[in-house]
Amino acid sequence: MIGRLNHVAIVVPDLAAAAESYRGILGAEVSEPLDMPEHGVTTVFVTLPNTKIELLHPLGEGSPIRTFLERHPSGGMHHLCYEVADIYAARDRLAEAGLRVLGDGEPRIGAHGKPVLFLHPKDMHGTLVEIEQA
Amino acid sequence: MIGRLNHVAIVVPDLAAAAESYRGILGAEVSEPLDMPEHGVTTVFVTLPNTKIELLHPLGEGSPIRTFLERHPSGGMHHLCYEVADIYAARDRLAEAGLRVLGDGEPRIGAHGKPVLFLHPKDMHGTLVEIEQA
Repeated sequence: MIGRLNHVAIVVPDLAAAAESYRGILGAEVSEPLDMPEHGVTTVFVTLPNTKIELLHPLGEGSPIRTFLERHPSGGMHHLCYEVADIYAARDRLAEAGLRVLGDGEPRIGAHGKPVLFLHPKDMHGTLVEIEQA
Repeated sequence: MIGRLNHVAIVVPDLAAAAESYRGILGAEVSEPLDMPEHGVTTVFVTLPNTKIELLHPLGEGSPIRTFLERHPSGGMHHLCYEVADIYAARDRLAEAGLRVLGDGEPRIGAHGKPVLFLHPKDMHGTLVEIEQA
């Protein structure tokens, strides 16, 4: 069912410093910061030859990653995103297997403008997993 | 400098259950467990079209991931591994930039039989980063 690893999301305490580490020290292709107020994050994309790293920082009081940064003030890996061809077929297969989809269980439009869902980390061995329709 | 994301390493409390989640529920290509006593881990490789997920479980009393699992008993993402063409050139560039290489600072042979080094997570914004010669 799952295809490519679309991205690894990393929450960082200082987005400019993290971007500079990836650009200046690791020599990767790094985007300018992009505010996504509807998702409560500012994002910097690190483009690798085979996948992306998304550096995230909270934006706004209601940011869904603010608590994560409070718990991990030095930053840390936040989630993995796997691609699927059909998000509704994926949702049904995951639900049949007893995995909990976060929120109301329905896919919603993610940060890339595509339908996504998130699985409960306890059902995925401690890792927050995002499923995105490719 | 960095190239492909070689793998994402995830420490899990139950390797068979995690392998079955990836194989049976997510429908991915999953290897049999492989004991690596010289690295203190048992590994299951999840092969995706563009990269790998490595599921890790401690092997032996001196396992380097035992403390991680004690701190994160539900499991969690452990490190990211980026490929470089020349590990010694990478080491010199990282050292010049003031990043701390774990251990004695010299590359050693990693779980894939290739020279690797690990960067201090505090120097990489909370993420443990492995650099592997491709």
